[in-house]
Amino acid sequence: MFAFDPRLLNDCEVLGKFKLCHVLLMRDANYPWCVLVPDREGMTEIFDLSEDDQKQFSLESNTLLEYLKKEFNADKMNVAALGNVVAQLHVHHIVRHKNDISWPSPVWGAHPAKVYLESELGKQIIRLTDGFENLDLDFQAK
Amino acid sequence: MFAFDPRLLNDCEVLGKFKLCHVLLMRDANYPWCVLVPDREGMTEIFDLSEDDQKQFSLESNTLLEYLKKEFNADKMNVAALGNVVAQLHVHHIVRHKNDISWPSPVWGAHPAKVYLESELGKQIIRLTDGFENLDLDFQAK
Repeated sequence: MFAFDPRLLNDCEVLGKFKLCHVLLMRDANYPWCVLVPDREGMTEIFDLSEDDQKQFSLESNTLLEYLKKEFNADKMNVAALGNVVAQLHVHHIVRHKNDISWPSPVWGAHPAKVYLESELGKQIIRLTDGFENLDLDFQAK
Repeated sequence: MFAFDPRLLNDCEVLGKFKLCHVLLMRDANYPWCVLVPDREGMTEIFDLSEDDQKQFSLESNTLLEYLKKEFNADKMNVAALGNVVAQLHVHHIVRHKNDISWPSPVWGAHPAKVYLESELGKQIIRLTDGFENLDLDFQAK
């Protein structure tokens, strides 16, 4: 049965679920940063998913990237599946701006996470979950 | 008409092409590291590709990841589309081992590229191109 690695829950807010993937918000106010976690047990690599799930993952990931780029007027989207520390399959989708704190470096190891103000976190969650409702990805809020 | 960003050619060897993507080898002997570059003009994000190309990209990327993991006995594969410096769409596929120089950090910014010995580079190219021939991705060596 699927369960989140506790380290993902420690770093992220669970916003809800698309058809295949849970969608989480990284608690780092430096960047709008979502994480997709397929609702499948024992996966560490994207190719561990079935062929149908790989197609669905591609659809959800690309739809999310396109939405985030437009919604936050990103200069570039960064997408990455690393998992060297937390092996459970999870894929980062990060909005990058030319004036963000780490540009043009990748975000990992560049700067410590910036804590969201409670009010900002609430607003960000509402903004994203409202947007996800319109994506045609069967979003179910948590 | 498609042309490589010169910075990709500066950092990589072009090995050949699958049906959609050119496949390059990063000149960094620290890690077996391939880069996929879709043969399409003016793309910066994966979702800039047509729907059919997105599906083909997903197939080529996942097939390449699975092959590299097995061929090099990887502990983890890292895959990322960043493009903050070189905007032309290119996606990193990196073999990670627990005893590599940067583990468990991401590779970017961790260590300078290690130059391949000429003989090692030639062997690596032959090993990869031989492997790609068997992948059912219409590989054409350069």
